Parts: sequence; structure tokens; C-alpha cells
Amino acid sequence: MYRNTYDSDNTVFSPQGRLHQVEYALEAVKQGSAAVGLRSKTHAILLALKRSTGELASYQQKMYRIDDHVGIAIAGLTSDARVLSNFMRQQAMSSRMVFNRPIPVNRLVSSIADKAQVNTQEYGRRPYGVGFLVIGQDKTGPHLYEFAPSGNSYEYYAMSIGARSQSAKTYLEKHFESFADCTLEDLIRHGLHALRESLQQDKELTINNTSIGIAGPASVHEKDVPAGGSFRILEGEPVEVFLKSMVPKETAEAQAAEAPAAEAPPDGAAPAQAGDQDVSMAE
Amino acid sequence: MYRNTYDSDNTVFSPQGRLHQVEYALEAVKQGSAAVGLRSKTHAILLALKRSTGELASYQQKMYRIDDHVGIAIAGLTSDARVLSNFMRQQAMSSRMVFNRPIPVNRLVSSIADKAQVNTQEYGRRPYGVGFLVIGQDKTGPHLYEFAPSGNSYEYYAMSIGARSQSAKTYLEKHFESFADCTLEDLIRHGLHALRESLQQDKELTINNTSIGIAGPASVHEKDVPAGGSFRILEGEPVEVFLKSMVPKETAEAQAAEAPAAEAPPDGAAPAQAGDQDVSMAE
Amino acid sequence: MYRNTYDSDNTVFSPQGRLHQVEYALEAVKQGSAAVGLRSKTHAILLALKRSTGELASYQQKMYRIDDHVGIAIAGLTSDARVLSNFMRQQAMSSRMVFNRPIPVNRLVSSIADKAQVNTQEYGRRPYGVGFLVIGQDKTGPHLYEFAPSGNSYEYYAMSIGARSQSAKTYLEKHFESFADCTLEDLIRHGLHALRESLQQDKELTINNTSIGIAGPASVHEKDVPAGGSFRILEGEPVEVFLKSMVPKETAEAQAAEAPAAEAPPDGAAPAQAGDQDVSMAE
Amino acid sequence: MYRNTYDSDNTVFSPQGRLHQVEYALEAVKQGSAAVGLRSKTHAILLALKRSTGELASYQQKMYRIDDHVGIAIAGLTSDARVLSNFMRQQAMSSRMVFNRPIPVNRLVSSIADKAQVNTQEYGRRPYGVGFLVIGQDKTGPHLYEFAPSGNSYEYYAMSIGARSQSAKTYLEKHFESFADCTLEDLIRHGLHALRESLQQDKELTINNTSIGIAGPASVHEKDVPAGGSFRILEGEPVEVFLKSMVPKETAEAQAAEAPAAEAPPDGAAPAQAGDQDVSMAE
Amino acid sequence: MYRNTYDSDNTVFSPQGRLHQVEYALEAVKQGSAAVGLRSKTHAILLALKRSTGELASYQQKMYRIDDHVGIAIAGLTSDARVLSNFMRQQAMSSRMVFNRPIPVNRLVSSIADKAQVNTQEYGRRPYGVGFLVIGQDKTGPHLYEFAPSGNSYEYYAMSIGARSQSAKTYLEKHFESFADCTLEDLIRHGLHALRESLQQDKELTINNTSIGIAGPASVHEKDVPAGGSFRILEGEPVEVFLKSMVPKETAEAQAAEAPAAEAPPDGAAPAQAGDQDVSMAE
Amino acid sequence: MYRNTYDSDNTVFSPQGRLHQVEYALEAVKQGSAAVGLRSKTHAILLALKRSTGELASYQQKMYRIDDHVGIAIAGLTSDARVLSNFMRQQAMSSRMVFNRPIPVNRLVSSIADKAQVNTQEYGRRPYGVGFLVIGQDKTGPHLYEFAPSGNSYEYYAMSIGARSQSAKTYLEKHFESFADCTLEDLIRHGLHALRESLQQDKELTINNTSIGIAGPASVHEKDVPAGGSFRILEGEPVEVFLKSMVPKETAEAQAAEAPAAEAPPDGAAPAQAGDQDVSMAE
Amino acid sequence: MYRNTYDSDNTVFSPQGRLHQVEYALEAVKQGSAAVGLRSKTHAILLALKRSTGELASYQQKMYRIDDHVGIAIAGLTSDARVLSNFMRQQAMSSRMVFNRPIPVNRLVSSIADKAQVNTQEYGRRPYGVGFLVIGQDKTGPHLYEFAPSGNSYEYYAMSIGARSQSAKTYLEKHFESFADCTLEDLIRHGLHALRESLQQDKELTINNTSIGIAGPASVHEKDVPAGGSFRILEGEPVEVFLKSMVPKETAEAQAAEAPAAEAPPDGAAPAQAGDQDVSMAE
Repeated sequence: MYRNTYDSDNTVFSPQGRLHQVEYALEAVKQGSAAVGLRSKTHAILLALKRSTGELASYQQKMYRIDDHVGIAIAGLTSDARVLSNFMRQQAMSSRMVFNRPIPVNRLVSSIADKAQVNTQEYGRRPYGVGFLVIGQDKTGPHLYEFAPSGNSYEYYAMSIGARSQSAKTYLEKHFESFADCTLEDLIRHGLHALRESLQQDKELTINNTSIGIAGPASVHEKDVPAGGSFRILEGEPVEVFLKSMVPKETAEAQAAEAPAAEAPPDGAAPAQAGDQDVSMAE
Repeated sequence: MYRNTYDSDNTVFSPQGRLHQVEYALEAVKQGSAAVGLRSKTHAILLALKRSTGELASYQQKMYRIDDHVGIAIAGLTSDARVLSNFMRQQAMSSRMVFNRPIPVNRLVSSIADKAQVNTQEYGRRPYGVGFLVIGQDKTGPHLYEFAPSGNSYEYYAMSIGARSQSAKTYLEKHFESFADCTLEDLIRHGLHALRESLQQDKELTINNTSIGIAGPASVHEKDVPAGGSFRILEGEPVEVFLKSMVPKETAEAQAAEAPAAEAPPDGAAPAQAGDQDVSMAE
Repeated sequence: MYRNTYDSDNTVFSPQGRLHQVEYALEAVKQGSAAVGLRSKTHAILLALKRSTGELASYQQKMYRIDDHVGIAIAGLTSDARVLSNFMRQQAMSSRMVFNRPIPVNRLVSSIADKAQVNTQEYGRRPYGVGFLVIGQDKTGPHLYEFAPSGNSYEYYAMSIGARSQSAKTYLEKHFESFADCTLEDLIRHGLHALRESLQQDKELTINNTSIGIAGPASVHEKDVPAGGSFRILEGEPVEVFLKSMVPKETAEAQAAEAPAAEAPPDGAAPAQAGDQDVSMAE
Repeated sequence: MYRNTYDSDNTVFSPQGRLHQVEYALEAVKQGSAAVGLRSKTHAILLALKRSTGELASYQQKMYRIDDHVGIAIAGLTSDARVLSNFMRQQAMSSRMVFNRPIPVNRLVSSIADKAQVNTQEYGRRPYGVGFLVIGQDKTGPHLYEFAPSGNSYEYYAMSIGARSQSAKTYLEKHFESFADCTLEDLIRHGLHALRESLQQDKELTINNTSIGIAGPASVHEKDVPAGGSFRILEGEPVEVFLKSMVPKETAEAQAAEAPAAEAPPDGAAPAQAGDQDVSMAE
Repeated sequence: MYRNTYDSDNTVFSPQGRLHQVEYALEAVKQGSAAVGLRSKTHAILLALKRSTGELASYQQKMYRIDDHVGIAIAGLTSDARVLSNFMRQQAMSSRMVFNRPIPVNRLVSSIADKAQVNTQEYGRRPYGVGFLVIGQDKTGPHLYEFAPSGNSYEYYAMSIGARSQSAKTYLEKHFESFADCTLEDLIRHGLHALRESLQQDKELTINNTSIGIAGPASVHEKDVPAGGSFRILEGEPVEVFLKSMVPKETAEAQAAEAPAAEAPPDGAAPAQAGDQDVSMAE
Repeated sequence: MYRNTYDSDNTVFSPQGRLHQVEYALEAVKQGSAAVGLRSKTHAILLALKRSTGELASYQQKMYRIDDHVGIAIAGLTSDARVLSNFMRQQAMSSRMVFNRPIPVNRLVSSIADKAQVNTQEYGRRPYGVGFLVIGQDKTGPHLYEFAPSGNSYEYYAMSIGARSQSAKTYLEKHFESFADCTLEDLIRHGLHALRESLQQDKELTINNTSIGIAGPASVHEKDVPAGGSFRILEGEPVEVFLKSMVPKETAEAQAAEAPAAEAPPDGAAPAQAGDQDVSMAE
Repeated sequence: MYRNTYDSDNTVFSPQGRLHQVEYALEAVKQGSAAVGLRSKTHAILLALKRSTGELASYQQKMYRIDDHVGIAIAGLTSDARVLSNFMRQQAMSSRMVFNRPIPVNRLVSSIADKAQVNTQEYGRRPYGVGFLVIGQDKTGPHLYEFAPSGNSYEYYAMSIGARSQSAKTYLEKHFESFADCTLEDLIRHGLHALRESLQQDKELTINNTSIGIAGPASVHEKDVPAGGSFRILEGEPVEVFLKSMVPKETAEAQAAEAPAAEAPPDGAAPAQAGDQDVSMAE
């Protein structure tokens, strides 16, 4: 009946201490197609569903190269993503020019998190409406970060963002303890299985709609990757060998049917534990 | 009964993570007359219905030359289009003066997409109310881009914007796989057929209301086109030969009547798949 | 029952993609007395009803000289008109001082159109509430433009703005095909006939309320016009000879009664075709 | 029942293309006591009712000297009048210092009209709430202008502003044709008659409440006026001789009773002709 | 039932051409205790009720010295008064330093009136909530001005502001014609009588609550006043001799009972004559 | 039923000429624990209840030293107090550095009063939510001032601010006439008695919750105080000797029970006399 | 039924003198997981529950090192915490560079308190939504401060913030008198007991979810701590020895069951004593 001021002003707290506009921005992230990230001791990888804007376009980019050692997958408003990824590229280039070294991955992630935090506190601009999975490798090894429009960024062993990412997360939580020691090939297979969970019922992973981003040494199926293993995106043909290595969907579902009852509850309970968690705003 | 704040402020998310003002700006694009763009391996072309503001004016420009190698067709607020196209010309001229080379088409498109994104995030200005089809050729060949007021830009094989553009898109989706290898003459014929689909029942394509924009080598019907095939607009007499090459409307409709049932559904279903698509805001 | 935000903020789109404030500004133009413009191959002319603010004032200016080669007729808020016409004079003077040549007419019109567009997009100022008919001659011959508060400007063969301008337009549409080859005397007669159509029932064109603006070589009735035929305004006595040349009203109406049925419909239908016309905002 | 946004924001058009705030500012002018201005071929004069703020004050100024050749009478908010008249003095002084000549009257009037227009278009300030009658003489002879808060200014043969100014205007319209050739003495008598029409029933013009402003050569009753006849204000004793020259009220009414029926209607109808008049906002 | 926007925005006219916020500011003045000012040919004086903030404070200042030749009495918001009086002191000091002479009183009053006018027209600040009586002497003799938050200032023979000032004004209007030739002693006695009228029923003027401000030569009861008679404030003991000179209240009332009927009506009617008075905003 | 705009905008007058936001800020002061100030001919002292934020914190500061000769006690928002007291310190330090002397107390108080007044008139900041009692000594002797968020400051013989300060004021009003000639020891005892009045029923003054601030020569119970008697705060043990000197509560109440009936009414009536007091906003 | 303006604007007082937005910001702090701080004569320590964002992430940081001698634990919005802690690091680094010494802890805390106060008073930014416990040691020994978004900061003997911190506070209040003389080992055990009180029923302190921050000399269980005992965080294995030293939960509860009835009331009553406490806004 009356104007609910708490949810239309960026910089206003609700009586419960929440910032509704920031939470709505997180909804925009959930409307993007899913992306999955995983990390082993040697590699960090991204897997994403390329988005088509109808048949008339080639599939749209879901992954962007930021620098030799860093790449991202996005979910949410693509125009916001373009702006933020350009900002990351400038930060990375600036590090190379000023300090003569690649920017540490966590510093790069902090730079956009700080930029995003300002939009959650000051007047004049809405929060960004896009989330990133950022992978990269630096002196401290391979990394996987999630960046959220709330201005938060966390490091993960494995993570998924975007539409139906909860299903992918469920898969990742079941298997993530084995990721650290996986070969790149196994890591990618796990990633593809997780990504498949986020598909709509009638969709399949194909060489046309699947992108794989890799930071780390070349897999046995890759050629011409520099020794350092800089970030590269596999699309089309090169993806096929990995798709073929997947366990068929029906088989996977049969296996999964064994344990879910026991594992689901703690999982389902997690979001209910709100109240003794620092407030990272809805993600 | 109460003020719906989500849709009157540019920079406010709705609880569903949507930016209503941006979506309304996309409506302004849909009120412009249709424009069609197609791309082959050698050419990119635009076709548009020139708009008359009553009989007292000559038909109004729907296409603008930006630089030797780039041209656009517009749909939406013409005053916004003038402002944005002037900005493109400055960008293009600046590239020639500073770097001594034509600006790459994708960079030119990014420059207005970035400019438009700002108006979707910061206070003080409404989003632009105009969409563009941009064609051009550079070192990487011919290109066709769509620019939308949301700050998004995508590359397409073929695309249509403006009023009843969905009908044109349906035609393009049926035939676009053959465009890559078309001759310029065939490509134009396909474009005219698509444009005809967007006409109101009682309208016809004529040499007075049809513009053809071409980037690429001269067709057999063109004279005095420089070797490089810089962007030019055909209007009036030169259009006639292409109009005559069209399949008469009735014939075309008879042909189309064969398959639509099978093809329409996936098409019609596409917009319904919202939820696992990155959010490119309603286009 | 609630505040309709779409129509009170300049820079907010309605859900239909319309800018209501801009449309309301166009209403202000319609409240000014009518002005008519026509163009032949050699001349561009303006005809307007001078406005009296009661008998105590001399008739007020409806036409302004901008430069030797350019003049305007206005309809709408006169204080806005004064501000914009002063801006045009500065632009024209600046061209003469910087480039040592008269400013091309289309550039002059673009300069105020750009200025007006800003007021339709940014916060802080309402749109202008005045429309212009601009005539002038430059290297490309005589020109007639309409400037509207929406930031649009179009070139016309003939045009009318202001109160009851639709009646004048109807006359112009019936006869405009013959204007190109008219002598100046005939062109003025056509203009006076069109202007008369916009009069209230009980009003007459007189030497006191009629202004004629001319760009082009002198008519047989003019003296002391420089060779180039710079813009001049005829008022009072010099107008009489042209008023006398008009076909008496009753005669004209009798003639007009022959064909209207056939012609009116397409005309009346024109505004209904909204949807496949670029959005030039209500004009 | 709801907030009517059209009339509380300066810079918002109503759906009818009107600026309500500007019209309300014109109401403030109508609450000031009346002032009358007249012009002959040789003189321009002002006549005004001095305003008393109770018996404890001397009568307040209704007329201000701006420069040797210019003076004004005001109606409306006196604090706004003080600000604007100071601005006029600066403009006049600046002309004398920079160009070494008195400022032309029409330029002086334009300068405040432009200043007032800004307040009708931009945010941040309300329109001025005061109207002026400006008289002066320059190379082109004597002048009488009305300045209105809408940013409009018109030249008049004779004019009245303020409370019940309509009655004074009616008198002026009856007699203005004879003003051009009047002697100063006759012109003043006409002005006093017009001013008397604006009085409340029970009020009389006296040497205490009547001011006369004159630009032009001295009358037979004036002494010590410089040859040029610079602007001066007559108050108190010097006014008496002019008051005595008036036709007694009853006599005047008897005379007026002869013709009003015929003349009143066109007058009363004038405001109803809105629609084919340029929008000078309610004056 | 709905938000009345006319009275909460400083810079918005009501449909009747009124500025409600300015009128409300004038209400703040009426909540201050009364002050009275009178002027003879040789003196200007102020009389005010000192305000106590409970018994714990000494009586608060109602009068301030601005410069040697100028003093003020205030009614309204004391913090606003402090700010404005500091501004007056700066203006006065600046005149002495730059021009080497005391500032003329009317110029000093204009400086704060201009400052106050800005707050009635521009956004960002409320009008001042304080009124002043300003007395002073300069080359043109003694002066008494009233300054109001509306940005108006008037010169008076005698005036009263603040709570129940109407009663004091009634006294002043009865006697002001005799003030011009009063001795300072008589002028003060008149002032005290007027001030007493504004007292609540049960209050008395005492040496504790009465201040007398004087500009002009010393009275017979004053010592150590410089020849010029610069502004001084009498409080405490020195006031006693003047209080004793007053006609006892009962006697005065008996005298007043003779004529009120005749005189009250014109007085009471004065505010009702709104409509043919310049708008000095409610005072 | 509707938004009451008068009380949510800092700079808007209510129709009664009141500034509600400023009055609400004064409420914030009333929520702080009480502080009491007294002044004799030789000393100015402060007494305050130290505030505990639970048992886990040491008692919080209620008094702050500003400079050698000035100290304050606060009631209200402590973060606002910190900001304003830092500002006072800067002002004091600046005086010592620029003029080489301690800042006069009244000038120091004026500096924050001016700062606070701005927040009651201009947009962009709320009024401060804290009140001060300021004591100090300078060439003119010891002083006690109250500073209020309204921008007012008054000098007092004795004063109390904060919660239940009315009870303390009642005590002070009964005894303040004797303060001028009190010894420091007696003055403190009076202060403690007044402070005790503001306690909740079940609370007692202890050496833990009572602070005493002194400006003036040392009492017989103090050691190591410089000759000048610069501002110092007594807490803990040193307070005990003064607490012991107090008349036990029951005894005091018995004494007080004699006269209250007669004295209370004038007191209670005081706030009801609004209307003939300058508007110092609710204090 | 109507918009409650008091709680959505940062800088608006409610009629009760409260700042609702600031209070809501304090709610955001209460949604973070609990942190506990304690201080002895030689040490200051922090204990916190590390927060997991699901199993896929390593536990997130709850403690941050600011400088060698200062560390913080946070509760609330983590993105705000990152911004404020970066600001603290700059302040600390600046002190070392400019003054060549570590910044005093209270000055560091004041710097963010001042920064936070601005956001409670000026427009343009919401208050911060995060609270800190700050420990550090400087010349004046070990310190424990709480920083709150209201701009307040207090020194404590022991304190807890975040979800269910009231339970931890209850424990601390029972035992804090013994903390001053505790060994580091005992102090940590007390801290762990307090932290355990804030746990949900089914949770346990483990080496995975418990962080210990220490400022002061090394405990018997620590190695490689520099002589000065700079701030360090214990996580994982090193925490185990302290967890083992705890009294098992059941035992502790049995002990606690003896006295609660007597102690709880004063505790529970504390918040009810609002009204005679300075307003530190809800904490």
C-alpha cells in the first residue's frame, strides 16, 4: 500500500540491517547461465555454458581473458561485465608496466571488489549486476575466486554461479575433497559433470555450447600451450575429447541416488543458519 | 495503487534483479521502422525502410555513413541516434588521426556500448532510446553488430531490429546458414525478403522507401565503387534492379507455408528459456 | 490515484518507451499561432501570423533574422525562442569569424537540435517549449527545416507548425508537388493560402497580422534587395500586393470541396501508423 | 487526492504544454498595486500607486530610477524587484563604462528577460515573482516595455500591471490611439485616469499615494529638468497640478457609460482566444 | 489527505502566487518577544523585552551593537540572528576599512535583505527565521528600518515586531505624528508605553527585563556619551528613571478607552486590503 | 495518513514557524545522562554522571578537557560530541598559535554555535545531536555556557542538561542566588545535590560514577593544581571527600518538602509561556 | 499506511531524537558471527568463529592484521570491513612513515570512528554495516576497543560483538574481574568459554572454525614470536592445545546453573535503563 523505501534506495538499511538493492543485484547474477570453477594443486579451471542470443549469432562469450595468468567467467548483466573486465585488464596491464610483474590474483580481485563496494554505499550509482568466477595462477599457485556485486570476494576450492548453480554446487560439495590431487583431465571431467547438473532437463553439453578455461600446464589433449600454462579458453573441437570422457547422465544419476538423503540435509540447512554468519549478502 | 519505484529510476534493481527503465528504452527501439543486416564471407549489408514524416518531407535517413569502412542503420529516437552517430564519427576520425588507420569495427561498437552502459548505471541521464545495426569491414573481414540501449553489443550472422523485426528474424533464421557463401546479389535479395516480412499488410518495398547499405566489393549492378568497397548507401533508381530480383510475395508465402510448424516452436520457445541466459536485458 | 512518474520526469521512459515530458513540450508548440514554410528551387519562404498581446502592443515578432542567409519563424514559448535564436546568431557569427563563411543551414539547425536533445536526456532542465521553421540558402541552394523540442530536425518541401497547423499541412500536401518550379510570387500565394487555412473562422489575413520571410532573389514587388537575396521580412504595406493576389476564401473552399474525401483518409490515417515509424516524438 | 506534480516543479510541463509554476508567479504580480505606463512620440511615462505598509511608514517606493534614461515601476514581490533592479543598474553602468554610452532600452529589458527565462527552465531556483513596466529613451526615441516573470518582454503603446490592472487597460484601450501626439500634460492626465480605474471603490488618488515617472523633455509644470529630459519621479506637491487637471470621477463614469457594451466584449473575449497566440504564459 | 507541496518547498509558488515557507518564517518572528522602535528628528531608539531562559540565566540579549552608529533589536530564532548580525558587523567594518567611513544605514540593511532574498528563491537553504529593527544615524540623520525574513526592508517612523506587536503598533499609530519633534526623554516614554502594550496581562516592565537602545545625542539622564551620540544600550539602573516617567498602566488604559472604537476598525481592516498591495509577504 | 514534511526536513518551517528536526535533535540531548554546571565569582564547575556501557567497560568519559582554561560536559550522541570537541580544541590551539593567547570562552562557544546553526539551515547534514555545558575562565572571570544543537548558546549562573535535568534545575533555581559567593567546596556540594536529583530512584552517587570538572583555584582538598587553576577533572578517590560532605538524601528531601508547592507552579508554567519568548527551539 | 521517513534517511532524527538508519546498521553487525575480546595487564586477545561460505571454501577470515601491534576481529558486512581495515592500515603505515613510530591504538580507533560518524550525519552515503573489536599494544599497554557503525568507540576490559554475543557477554561479566591478572593461557581459556556461549546448540569449537588473535608476549605454546609480541593469529593446529584446556561444556553449564537467577536480572535490566545513558545508539 505504501512505498517500501528499503528496497529501492541503494544505500538504505532495512530495519533488519539488510541492503535490499544489493540483494536484488545478486538476483541479476542468478539469471545468467551457470559457470563452474574448480581448483587442483596444479590447475584452476572454468567451465561455462556459452549463451546464444538466438540462432543468428554465434554463441556469446561467457569467458574473458584478463591477462596471461588470469581469466574470468561471468553470470549476469553482460554490459556490466564488459566494464568491470576492462577495468581488470587495466589493473593487470598497469602492474606489468609499473612493477614489471603480473598482478597477484587476489589483488586483482580486491580491486573490483572495492570498486563494487562503493556502489553499495554511496549515492549516484546502482550496484553492479554481474558475478565473476576468477581463476589464475601466481607465485602462490593456482587460485579460484568468486566476485559478487555486494563487494565480497572469496577464495574457493570449487564454486558455481548463475542459474541453477545450486545443483552444480551440490555435485561439487560431494566431490571437492578429491580435487586437490586430480589431474587436469579429471578436474575437467568433474567440472563438466557439475555443469551438466545446472542444465535444463532437455539440454545437453555440446562442443557448441561448452567453454573450458584453463590456467596451468597443458593437458595431454592440448597443443601449443606455453610452458607456463597461461590462461586459455577451449571451444569447439578441442572440447570434444573432454565431453566424451564424461560418465553418461543416466549412469551418473543412478550413482547419485545412493547417498543424497544423508548429504542433502546439512546442505539444505546451510542457508538456514543465517544469523551466525558474517553478512555476505545473500550469496 | 502506489508508486512503483523499480521502473522509474534508471539505476534501481527490481526484486527480480531487473532494470525496468532499460527495458523501456528497448521498447523505444521497437517503435522505429525495421532494419535488417546480413553478412557473407565477403560483404556485410544493411536494408531499411526509409521513414517519411508525411508527404511534405523527403524520406528520412535510416542509414548513416560513419567512416569509409563503417555504416549504421537505426531504429528508435532519431535525436539520440544523431548524438551517438556523431560520437562514432569522432571515434573513427580520431583513430585515423592518432593511429593512422581505420578503427576496428568491434572497437567502435564497444565505444558506444560503454557510453550507453554508463546511462544504465549512474544517475543524471536516461538510457539512450535507439538501437543500431552496425556493418563494416576491417582486417578481420566484414562484420555485423547490433548495439542496444542496454549497453550490450553482439556480433551476428544476420539480425533485424525495430517494429515487427521478429517476422524478419524468422525469415533470417530459416536461411542464415546459406548467407556465408552468398554473392552480394543473393545476400541483398535475402535481405529484401526479410525486410518485406516486417512490412505492414498493405505496404510494399519500393525504390522510394528502401535503402541498401553495403560494405564490401561492388556488385555487378554498381559503378564507381572504389576497389576497397567502402560503405555506400543505395537509394532510388539503383535499388530497382534488386527489388526486381525478389520472389513475388505470394510465391514466397506459399513456399514458407511448408515448414513453419516445425521451426516456429523452438523459435517461439527461445524467449521462454529466460533464466539460463545471461541478462542482456530484453533483446 | 497515484503519482504517474512517467510524465513528470524529463528523463524517464514510460513502459511503452515514450518520453512524456518531451511530448508535452510539443504541446506548447501547438499553442503558438501557426507558421508556414515553403521551398522552391530558388527560394525558401516563411509566412506567419503576427501575434498581438492585446491592442495596446504593436504585433509581436514571429520571425527573426539569424544571419544574412538564415531566418526563422517560431511557435511556442517566446522566451525559449529568444534564448535559442540568440544561440543560433552566435553560431552563425562564429562561423563567419572563424571560417570566414556563412554557416551551412543544416549545421546551424543541427546545433540547436543537439542542444535540445540534451534537455530530453539529462536532469536539471526541462525540454525547450518552442518549435522553429528555419529557412536559408547556402551553396546547396534554398532549404526549409523544422526544429522540434524533441531534438529532431527534418528538411521539408513545405511545412507548418503551431495552432491548427494540420489544416495548413493539408493544403500544402495537396499542392507541394508544384512548389519546386514556382516563381517567388506563386510560392508566396501558396503560402498565404496555407496560412489562411490555419485561421480561426472569423479571422482574416491583413497587412497588420501577416509576416512574410524570404530567402532568395527579389520578387518583382520588392526593391533594394541585395543581389544575393539575403533574408528579409515583409510586413505592412509590402505585404498588400501579395494578399491581393490570393484566391478569395469562398472560391478556394469551393475548389477544395471537390477532392477531400479521397485525400483526407490517408492523411488522417498517418498518425495511426505509429509503430513502424522512427520515434520523432509526436510531431 | 494525489500530488499534482505539474504545478510544483518549475521545469515540468503539464500534459497541455503549460508551466504551472510560471503561471503562479504571474499571480504574484497581480497581487501588487497597479502601475500604468504610456508612451507618446516624445515621452514615456509611468504612474503608480505608492504602497503604504500601515501608517507607520512613509509610502513605499513603486518606481526606481535605473539610469539617467531609464526607470521602472514594479508590481509583485518587492525583494525580487530589488534584486532585479540592481541587476539592471549594473548592466546600465557597465554599458557606460565599457562602451561609453547609455544602454539601449530594449537591450536592458532583454538582459532581465534572459535572466528570468533561466529560472523557468533550470532546476534550483523559482521564477521571479515580480513584473516591471520599463520606460526609457534612447536613439530610437521613447519606449515602454513590460517585463514578466515568464521571461517575456513586449513593447507597448500603453500598459498596466498589478491588481485590477484590467480596468486600467480597458481605459487605455479606449484612448491609446490618441497618445502618440499627446503633450506630456495630456499624457499624464490619461495615465492618471487609467490609474484611477484600478483603485478600490473607496480610494482616491492623492499627492501622497501617487507617483509619476517621466522620461522626456520637461513639462510646463517642471523645473530644473536637464535638457535631455532624463528620468525623474514626481511625488508629493509637484503631483498636485496634474491631479487637479483630471476629469472628476463621476463625470468620467458618465462619459464611459455611453459605449462600454460594444467595446467590452472584444476585450473580454481576448483571453478566450488562447490557442492561436504564442504562449506568453498567462499575461 | 495529500502532501501539500506548496508550503514545504522554499522556492515553490502556490497557485495564488504565494511562497508559504517564507510566510512560515515570518511566524517564527512572531514567536519572539516584542521589540519597539521609534524615530524623532534627532534620535532613533529601540525598546525590547529581554528574554530570560529561566531564572538560572541572566536575561538574554535582545539588542546588539553592530557599529558605532548602528544597533539592532531582534525577534525570532536567536541563532539565525547571531549569524546575520555577524554579517552586518563585517559589512560595517569593511566599509570603514575600504572607504574609511561608516556604512550608510540603508546600505547595511539592503545587504542583509539581499542575503535573505536568496534563501527565498534558491534551493539548499531555508529562509532566515528572524526579524530585526535596525536603528542608526548617518549623514541623512537618524533612521529606523524593519528587516523581515522575506528579504524586504522598510523605513518606518515607528514600528514593532514580535509577539503581540500588534498591540504596540496600535499605540504607535495613535501617537506617531508627534514623534518627530519629541525630546529623547519623551520618545523613550512613548516607546515604553508601546512596549507595555505587548506585555502579557500579568507582566510588568522592570529594570531587569527592559532594554533601551539609543542612537543620537545623550539624554539628560545619560553620562559619558560621546558627542556624536553613538549607539548604546541602557539596561538595569539607568533604565529606572525612564520607567518612573511612565504613565501608570491603569491611567493609560482609562485614557485609551475613549477613542478605540473609532480607530480600531481602520486598523483591523488593513490586513484585509490585501490584493492591491505589493506582496511584502505577510508582514 | 500522509507524510508530514515539516518534521523530516531540516530546513523546512512548519506553518507555526517551527523547525521540527531541530527540536528532535534536542530530544537526543535529553537521552544523555545528566550533567550539572555552576558558577561562583571565582570558579566554574561541572558535575556529571559517568556512563557505563555495561560492566565490561570502564565508565565512559562525560567530560573533556578542551584547553588549559576550558572544559566541557556532554549529553547526547557521543560520536557527535567527539567531532565537535575536536573542533573546539582546534579553535583553542589556533588561538594560542596565531594570537599567542588563550581563546576567550565566549568566542569558543560561538564557534561551535555557528557551526551548528549551519546544520539547521542548509541541506546536506542533520543537526548535531549533542548538548554541552562549557566552563572556563578568561580575563573576564569564570564562565558557564550551555551549547544546544539549535545553534544557541547562553551564559548561565547554573544549568543542567540531559535526562531528568529538570529535577536538577529545580534544585539549582532554589539555591542559585547563593552561588556567587560560595567557596569551591560549597559550590561542589551544591552541584552534587543537584546532580543527585537527576538520579533514578535506586541509584546513588559514588566515586565510580561521579566526575567533577573544575576551572579556578585549587580547593583545600586538591593538590598539584597550578596557580592559575587550569581545568581539571576529579574522578575516583579525590571525589570521595566531596561526596561525604553531602547532606544525606533523606534529610534533603525532608527539607525540600517544606516549600515545593509554592515554587513548582511558576516553574511548571514557564514552558507554557511560549509565544512571548524568542525562539530558542525547545530548550 | 504512510512512508515512515524517520527510518530511511540517514540524517533525519525521529521525534524521539533517534537515528533509525544508524540503528539498523547496528543490526547488520548482529548478523555476523560472534567475536570475543579480552584484556589482561599484559595481553589483549581476540577469539572468533571463522565463517565458512559452504564447504567449498576454506573458512573465511574473521581477523585481520592491521599493523605489527594492532589486529581486529569483525562482525557484519565483510565488504565494508575490507574498506575500513584498509583505511586503518594506511593510517598505521602513515604514522610509521611520517612520525617514525607505531600509531597509538586509541588514535587508530578514533580515525575510523570519525570516518563512520560522517556517514551518520551527512547525505550521500549509508552508515557502515560492520563492527570491530580492535586489540593492540602501545606505550600505555595492551588495549581492547569496540568500534561501532554509529561512530562510537569504547575501551573495554572484555567485550563481544555479533550474533548471540549477549551470551558471551554474560560469561564475560561473570568473570572479567579476574582477567587483569590472568596469564595468557588462562585469558585464552576464558575467551574460548565465552565464545562457546555464543555457539548454536549443535555447534562445537574446533581447530577449523576457531581463530585466536594475540597482542603481547608469547604464550608457553607459541614459538617464533618476536620479543615485542606483535599481533599474530593462531589457526588450525596451534589452536588445539587451547581448546583442550577448556572445561567441557556440560561441566561448565552445571557450574553456571548455580548463580544465574541472581545475576541475570541486573543484566537483563541494563538495556531497560535507557534514558539516563548517553546515546551510543543501540549497542
